[in-house]
Formats: sequence, structure tokens, C-alpha cells
Amino acid sequence: MTHSSAVALPKDLPENFVGELQSFLGDRFTQSESVLDLHGRDESYFPPTPPQAVVFPQNADEVQRIVRACASSGIPIVPFGAGSSLEGHVLAIHGGISLDLTEMHRIVEVRPDDLDVTVQAGVTRLQLEKALAEHGLFFPVDPGADATLGGMIATGASGTTTVRYGTMRENVLCLEVVLANGDIMRTGTRAKKSSSGYDLTRLMIGSEGTLGVITEATLKVHGIPEGISAAVCSFPELAQAVQTAVELIQWGTPVARVELLDEVQIDAVNRHSGLDQPVQPTLFFEFHGTEAGVEEHARTAAGIASRHGGQNFRSATAAGERHTLWQARHEAYFADLALRPGARVMSTDVCVPISRLVECITETKAEIATASFPVPIVGHVGDGNFHLLLVIDPNSEAELEEAKALNRSLVERALSMGGTSTGEHGIGIGKQVWMEREHGAALDAMRAIKLALDPQSILNPGKILPPA
Amino acid sequence: MTHSSAVALPKDLPENFVGELQSFLGDRFTQSESVLDLHGRDESYFPPTPPQAVVFPQNADEVQRIVRACASSGIPIVPFGAGSSLEGHVLAIHGGISLDLTEMHRIVEVRPDDLDVTVQAGVTRLQLEKALAEHGLFFPVDPGADATLGGMIATGASGTTTVRYGTMRENVLCLEVVLANGDIMRTGTRAKKSSSGYDLTRLMIGSEGTLGVITEATLKVHGIPEGISAAVCSFPELAQAVQTAVELIQWGTPVARVELLDEVQIDAVNRHSGLDQPVQPTLFFEFHGTEAGVEEHARTAAGIASRHGGQNFRSATAAGERHTLWQARHEAYFADLALRPGARVMSTDVCVPISRLVECITETKAEIATASFPVPIVGHVGDGNFHLLLVIDPNSEAELEEAKALNRSLVERALSMGGTSTGEHGIGIGKQVWMEREHGAALDAMRAIKLALDPQSILNPGKILPPA
Repeated sequence: MTHSSAVALPKDLPENFVGELQSFLGDRFTQSESVLDLHGRDESYFPPTPPQAVVFPQNADEVQRIVRACASSGIPIVPFGAGSSLEGHVLAIHGGISLDLTEMHRIVEVRPDDLDVTVQAGVTRLQLEKALAEHGLFFPVDPGADATLGGMIATGASGTTTVRYGTMRENVLCLEVVLANGDIMRTGTRAKKSSSGYDLTRLMIGSEGTLGVITEATLKVHGIPEGISAAVCSFPELAQAVQTAVELIQWGTPVARVELLDEVQIDAVNRHSGLDQPVQPTLFFEFHGTEAGVEEHARTAAGIASRHGGQNFRSATAAGERHTLWQARHEAYFADLALRPGARVMSTDVCVPISRLVECITETKAEIATASFPVPIVGHVGDGNFHLLLVIDPNSEAELEEAKALNRSLVERALSMGGTSTGEHGIGIGKQVWMEREHGAALDAMRAIKLALDPQSILNPGKILPPA
Repeated sequence: MTHSSAVALPKDLPENFVGELQSFLGDRFTQSESVLDLHGRDESYFPPTPPQAVVFPQNADEVQRIVRACASSGIPIVPFGAGSSLEGHVLAIHGGISLDLTEMHRIVEVRPDDLDVTVQAGVTRLQLEKALAEHGLFFPVDPGADATLGGMIATGASGTTTVRYGTMRENVLCLEVVLANGDIMRTGTRAKKSSSGYDLTRLMIGSEGTLGVITEATLKVHGIPEGISAAVCSFPELAQAVQTAVELIQWGTPVARVELLDEVQIDAVNRHSGLDQPVQPTLFFEFHGTEAGVEEHARTAAGIASRHGGQNFRSATAAGERHTLWQARHEAYFADLALRPGARVMSTDVCVPISRLVECITETKAEIATASFPVPIVGHVGDGNFHLLLVIDPNSEAELEEAKALNRSLVERALSMGGTSTGEHGIGIGKQVWMEREHGAALDAMRAIKLALDPQSILNPGKILPPA
């Protein structure tokens, strides 16, 4: 187990601090090696970096007491949800405690009349999906992993349906947050819109636990559409598939999902999920609306695809068939892992203005052609966002360096095209190196805000903001 | 001309400060009484409070020089657009300069392929509408007034189409902002989404010039829909009209506009705009989509309206007829002014969770029944937002007090229902009294952010945040 080499090993937690937390948390304060180990990992390629203790609060008042204790002793707090982050967000690189929110997993209230739901931060995406389905409702943001809602908010997550329903930014109404000083803050109201004061809700979304601990959230939900249909279409060339997605957006077709899988990824999902798609660049579509509406949208998509060489545009309206398709898409990551036993996947995450997407993907595809390891491409192409899934041998320093170099080159390309280093995975420790280039003077403003809200830097220190 | 009585008269501007601004602005620095007077007013009911000078920069570099000069001398800066704000945002209550952005009115670039447009802050809504129409595009946020885009961003504006397209928060991609220290900051990128760092774009939206001077913005735009249709429907009872709008939303019908006008407002627009609608509570609808789609949506709306006593649901697909209807809606404010020669309109602006809207409007309607002056109601009811337009005699202290009391009562009602004091007009100086109650601990966080980004409090001082 390796602590990040740049950082000194933290001192032991003070006895009075430990005693105080134990006094009200009992065995929900732990320093067991196995629990520490579990909280020192996420889905990133960074070396495990466990915290010095893990706490499992059950409500905001307990979070408040924990934060106050940490503030008194200057102990770092790393909020922890499902551990599915991809950029090292939850690694305790400055030591301190991991604040595990998974015991705060209550769905507080579903309000079908307001199309909103209030959840504690530890509720997971699939748990929420199940609870909402009973009311004929769904929450659209779908990052793939069964992340906690708190984690999705902290990361500024999005996913396959963002092209239609937006990211977490567009789907959170209000939050309960414990600030670094222990204040329990409520941001916003359940009104659908407000111009009252600074938008602290959006400030917290994507702040990766560095500005406050999110304990509860009220989310916008939607009625499950009357009509849902999926479709799949293969293309001889990657650029043709991307161009189809781009035009679909430019035409304003309200597609609910349009996902690119290149031929490498299709080959992997064919093997892993038992599909038999042609091993070609492929688009997966989904359409939501009325029965008549989704048929019309699918016809529009088929027309655009056909003009760009699309072959075998095939609709899947039956729920079973749709499920198979999207299950395969969601398992892309695991399909890729299965390509190389013992491998790890490093995922890139650039997002560019959609007019540059064909160029960005085409140049990138040429660059990865000579990679020493498999590099499937998946993309939320309707948003201009795509991922290289670099399937590397975790024991090979050479492959790790090669993967990092490919990522660097890709981020440089995206930034030069007016894009961003991360569409949905966040900065964590993995993308700090581009913060200055992407944000310029705005980075100073971010630092000023961090200092204002967390003057001791106890909230997930060392994340997002590069060392000054 | 009256300065706000609570604030000491500002000292004269220092000579060296004036000299410096004149050196590079020439006659775009002015202290002419008539220009000062024009910049001391907005559409609110507050007494005019002119600045000590007005500057007309033409680019961000000039704004930067102005801000640096103000920072050196501790002079307040009040950004000024069209002067259409409703809560005193642009009144120079602490003296200083009015920074008029209307000479920064260049449409920098329209990018149909990316469905975005970059504008300088002084571009107005109608100017933008015209420029976009040449490309078959439109920008959806429509607050009614021909405001500047910079003002709409600073206010967190929304309007009639928000139910479908969102507020300014959902329609701004990135900003150029001059900070209090003179730094020119770019927030965000033109990528459709990003998880890179704190969301400073959203922090600036609705900050009313208190955190930075917005100089340029890149906005999302949409293709003008293939099909647009409008419809109008009268109801015997106000609650029936509201319930129809509520159910339309709850059913997930993608209505583009659904506006309530009560019988008092209908009477006013009939007189002013030559409509001959039955003098009853009325909904105006608009539907956007494909030809087939809009017909389907209109049928859904007609069905819901009819179940709630709606009468004479009448579609208007011809552009001329639609225009007449929406022109009348947009002129509601002027129609109300015409009800009483010499009157002024004070507008309320609460927004509540939609499940409480019928109750909120019904209770409010009962309360205004005994008002001493006309009180038409208009509402963006699909969002839970509505306005009382209190048509008062500006020379009557009694009417002003009565109007304020009605507003107080309404805001209390909305807050107790989980709503907000302002859906789209902002806080300015008019709604500060509710900031503590609406935001609690979040207000302290707002103050900390203000202090961090504008430690001297030179940016629109005295707005949004109540005196501590």
C-alpha cells in the first residue's frame, strides 16, 4: 500500500479526536485494516491510499459532529460513496478520515405531483431507479456505475441520457450540505426556478467534496415515457458514425441516447455480452416520447444514418431487446477488462464542441492505432464527449506511461479545440495538471472560493485544485 | 432626485480617478445630469438613485481598466444594461459609477454547427433574435423586456419558454467576466458539458453584478422548430386554469409555453391589444416540435383543459395569429399601466413547487380581492411562477404601503410552501429582507464568497446581500 509519494505520511489521529468520534459513533468509527483498505481505492489507476479511519454517519447531525471534530483537530475529511470514481477523488492522499455515506441510504420522499424526490446522499442510482419505478417515474442521469447520488452530485456526473435530459447540474433542485465549519446549509428550494442569491447548488455540484459534504439532495424526476424504442446501426467508417450523431443533434432531434462504440468495443461486447453486431463502428440509439413520437424520431435517425453509409439500421422496441442492447453498452467497461485477464482500464474523458467531434475522434483513432494494448472507444457523442478505454497491464510501467501519454495528447487536442479535459469524470488528482491551462484566471477564483469556504483545507484536500 | 435614505451621500469622485478614466474613455466618461438621471432608474418602484458618473466601455480591456481604476480608489461599480430590472439592481445606492455595457453590442460569432452563439454583454434579446433568425436559429429565454443578454445573465432571468427550454442557468455555456481585481476570467468552455472544477458560470448567473462584470457570453441556441402552434383556452374558475397547467406538466407534455392571465389581465389586454377574449381566467399555450408532434401536444392540452372546465380551446397555427396572441401577452405590463393613467406597476415574483400552485394562487386571489387598486395576475404557471402586477398610484404612500404588504404576505405564503421569493426578477434591493429566511446558513456562505471575490465590495455594493 503506497501513499502518494509527494505527500508526507500523516501523523496518527489524536487520541481525543478518536475518543470523541467513538463516543457517538461507537463501532461506526473504525480503523480496521480491511475497511481502511476498501476506502483507499476507487476505479482509477492510482495506487491505493487508505484513510486513517472510516466513519459511517447515519444522519446530517452526525456528519456535523464529525466535521466539527475534524475542524477542531485539523483532520482531513474525504467523503466516500460507492468508490466508483475514476480520478482518485476518494483517495486519502493527506490522510484523515473517510466519511462513508452509504448508511445514509434513505429515500426521504418521492413526490410524483412535483416530479421530484428527496434522497440521502448514500442512496444509489439503482436503488433510486427501483423506488421511482413504483410511481412510474425515473431519474435520468445514468453514469453507468451504480454510484451514490451524493457521489454523482459531487462529481458532476452525466452519462448516456445527458443529450436529452442534461447532467446532474440540470437535475438537482436543492441540497443539504455540511460546510467545513459544521454549518448545515440548505441550498435552493423545491421551486423549479429561483433568482434568489448565488447558485450554491450548482457550486456544490462537481466540487468533489472540497467545499462541503453533501448529505441530502432533491432531484428532478420524469414520468417514464409512454414510448421508448432503441435502435442500432453499423457504419463502414468511424467518421460516418460520428457524423450521423452530430447531424442528429444539429437537426434538433430529441434523441434520448446516442452512443458510439467503435469496432474494437463492439468486438469486446459481442464476446462479453453475447451480441452479434457486425464488428464495425456502431451507434446505439434510444428515443423517448409518445408512441408516435418515437417512431418519428427513429425515422429521422435512420434517414441521417443512411445518408452517411449507415447499414442495417435496426429498431428494438420490445423491452427485452432494448435491455439486451443497453446492458451490453453498460458492461462495456467489463467487456474491455475481459479482453486481457488481469488488466485495468484507464478511461479518458474529453468533451469538445460538437462541430469538432469528427476531427477529434478521427485524429485520436489514428494515434491509438499503434498502441501496445487494446483501446476501445465509447462515446456520448451527442454531447461531444467520448472515452478511450485504455486496457493496460497494471504491472507494466511502460504501458502506464504510454497510456498517460495518449491521454495527455488527447487532452491537449481537446483543449486546443475549445473543449474540456473532463466531460463527466471530474478532476480528482488525475486531471489537475490541466486546470491552469483550461481555466486561467478562473482557477484563482476557484482557489479564493475554496479558501473562503474551507480556510483550513480539511475537506478532501489535494483534490481538484493543483498545488499553488 | 432622492438617494436612498439609509445611505450617506457619497463623496465626490477623486480628481485623479476622473482624469484617468477620461484619459482613455474620452467622452465615453460622462457626468452629464441627464445621463446620470437615466442611469439612476430601472423599472422598479424605488426612488431614482443616480450614479456619480457613467462610463461606456467598448471592450473587455476597457472594462478591465475601469475596474482597476475603481479598485484603486474604492469606487463602486454598478453594471448597467437596458435598465429593465425590477428590483433596483442598477440603482447607485452607494454612489460610484454606472458601467453601461450597451456599446458592447457585437454579436461575436454565430455557430450553427455547434448550436451556440457568442455575444458581447450589451447585445439585446431582440437584436440576438434577429441575428439568429437568419440562420434558422433562436435563443429561447424570453423575459419579455428587450433586456441585454448581460443583464439577463446577471439577473438569472427566465420567462415564458422556461417550462420547455430552461432559464439562463441552462442556456449559458461560458462567460467572460472582469473580476473585482481586474482579472479577465473565462468560465467554462464551449463543450456542452464539463466536470472540470467549480461551476463559476452558474455562480455568475444571478449574481447581479456583485461578483464580476460580465463582458461576453456564449449561449446555447436551438433550431427554429419545424412546427409551432399556439392555443388559447378560457376557464370559469382561476383554479381550473391553474390545475390544467399543473397536470400538463405532471403528464410530461413538452409544452413550450403555458401562460396564465387572470380575468383582470385579460380585460386589460383586450382593451390594450385589441383581443376579444372572454373576460375569464385564460391559458395561452405554445407547442414546438414537428408538425405532427405539435398537433399531438395540442390535443393532449385540449383534453386536460376540457376535463377542468376549459371552454373554447382554440388553436392558432398561422404565424400572424400566434404573433397577435403573444404580442398581447408580452404587452401585459403596458396594458396594466394603461388601466390607470400615471400609474406604476409593482410586480411580485414568487415561485412554488407546482403541487402547491393552485393553493398559492387561490389564497392570493382571495387576498387581493379587496385591494384598493387593480391587481392583474400573470403566471409562468408551468414553472410554478406567477406575478401580481400591482397597478399603483406612485404618489400615494398608502397604496405603496398596501402593495408592499400584499407582496410581503405573498412571499411569506410562498416560502411557507417551500418556494422562493423570486423566480426570475432577482433580489436587488427589493427582496433582501427575505434572504435570511430563505437561505439560512447558505446566506453566510454567500457572504463568504462575496468577500473572497470582492474584498473591497466595489461591485454593485448593497445588492443581493442584506447588511450583516
